[in-house]
Amino acid sequence: MSARYRVACLQMECAVGEPSRNIATAVRLARSAARAGARLLVLPELCNSGYVLASRAEAHALAEPVPDGPASSAFLEVCRETGAYLVAGLAERDGADLYSSAVLYGPDGHLGTYRKLHLWNTENLYFEPGDLGVRVVHTEIGRIGLAVCYDAWFPETFRALAAQRADLVAMPVNWVRGPGDAEGSHPAGVTLAIAAATCNGMSIAVADRVGEERGQRFLGASTLVGPRGQLLAPLAGDTDEQVVAAEIDLEAIRSARTWSPYNHLMHDRRTDVYGPLPTGR
Amino acid sequence: MSARYRVACLQMECAVGEPSRNIATAVRLARSAARAGARLLVLPELCNSGYVLASRAEAHALAEPVPDGPASSAFLEVCRETGAYLVAGLAERDGADLYSSAVLYGPDGHLGTYRKLHLWNTENLYFEPGDLGVRVVHTEIGRIGLAVCYDAWFPETFRALAAQRADLVAMPVNWVRGPGDAEGSHPAGVTLAIAAATCNGMSIAVADRVGEERGQRFLGASTLVGPRGQLLAPLAGDTDEQVVAAEIDLEAIRSARTWSPYNHLMHDRRTDVYGPLPTGR
Repeated sequence: MSARYRVACLQMECAVGEPSRNIATAVRLARSAARAGARLLVLPELCNSGYVLASRAEAHALAEPVPDGPASSAFLEVCRETGAYLVAGLAERDGADLYSSAVLYGPDGHLGTYRKLHLWNTENLYFEPGDLGVRVVHTEIGRIGLAVCYDAWFPETFRALAAQRADLVAMPVNWVRGPGDAEGSHPAGVTLAIAAATCNGMSIAVADRVGEERGQRFLGASTLVGPRGQLLAPLAGDTDEQVVAAEIDLEAIRSARTWSPYNHLMHDRRTDVYGPLPTGR
Repeated sequence: MSARYRVACLQMECAVGEPSRNIATAVRLARSAARAGARLLVLPELCNSGYVLASRAEAHALAEPVPDGPASSAFLEVCRETGAYLVAGLAERDGADLYSSAVLYGPDGHLGTYRKLHLWNTENLYFEPGDLGVRVVHTEIGRIGLAVCYDAWFPETFRALAAQRADLVAMPVNWVRGPGDAEGSHPAGVTLAIAAATCNGMSIAVADRVGEERGQRFLGASTLVGPRGQLLAPLAGDTDEQVVAAEIDLEAIRSARTWSPYNHLMHDRRTDVYGPLPTGR
């Protein structure tokens, strides 16, 4: 049985206010990873606009409609050309409203948009909370779930993705150092991704950015987790552009929820105590 | 304001089939930690019976009624004598039924029993799934939640404990090596405890056992996590009896869910997408 494919988390540096440059960087990394065999490419959150926005006017100017904007056009071209699937975190503009979105493209076009449900800190000044629920998209390479950064602090996000039978969650992030991050442990976001993969029997592919923007440093540490919570490749470093890639095996994923003849991670849930899985739709 | 107290996770070796010896070990550790200033003591799962049971007859013989059994009597005596609170994982017998329970004792008596909701592997041969829901007990030192081992693989456990406003979750465990455990990362249970503390803004005190029993090794790594997911003390090792202790600060815990003027870990939940917190009662 062949149900394997290669996933690449594309850790890059973004520059706030320079979407053309950011898109060019993303395209370069994506094309290179696809040519090296990756079928699924994941880019960081807000990879077109940059993260540390200074005003609503700036945010509006840097965001773009999806899929009819320049980042979408560029990523669709990469997918058509290479046969890969690509998830990008984008500043999305829809009329007067902005969203921090995760957008999935494939060789045949735009496949789905997810809008970040949980907004972190001053994102609340610029973006609307997502209004499209939790999103899993069915593709030839399997069921791809979408989530963005702070969504991972809410285990319900992954529960809803599991209810929709996601094989893999592609998660663009812009991790910054938080109050619980300490030497000797993984950054909190990495821990949450490993925990979510462990509890839900799914893979999680996280692409973070690096660099500093208006005084804010980003953590890197892009992460590719297997369906038992194992790291499928070493974490990325915290300073450089880097590709974290490994092969994903749908056979391993779709059998990962069965742990023993007595245990299945979903069926062991005590619905009588805390109810059924939310679908998030 | 003084709302601090010292917590001690008591990592010990248990011997299957030797409850008197196990209780004596637990009492020795508990008394010593209490005399060193701990107000809350946590002991491992099934610390009276041992874990690797060979038959239902053996399980029935080793389990005891709560609170009218020998382990409860011994632990109540330690609490009365020292003024401490103590959580022990016990094989509990209630008529024909056995439970893997976490029992809370205080200076004034037995305060509450929680019965493990999620049974792992061959535990299903001996124990009934818990029938008392999720349990938080109010005490002079704060709101103490109870959970046992495999419960941590279900994020709903911690969500329900958070809904009941637990300050700290005392979690007896008997961790064994699982399929996702790999060199270079924490054991899965540690990761899940850190993740749960991070998402829920609560402390988690895990007491594991060490040693080998009928060919099964246990992982140690007893863990004390703060309400931002930070380790409050180094993890215990994987071979020796050890006390993992640190001070808990209710001020830090009860303010930990507010991350920024824009963010509160509970209020940021998207109840419109996945519903309210389950209380688990």
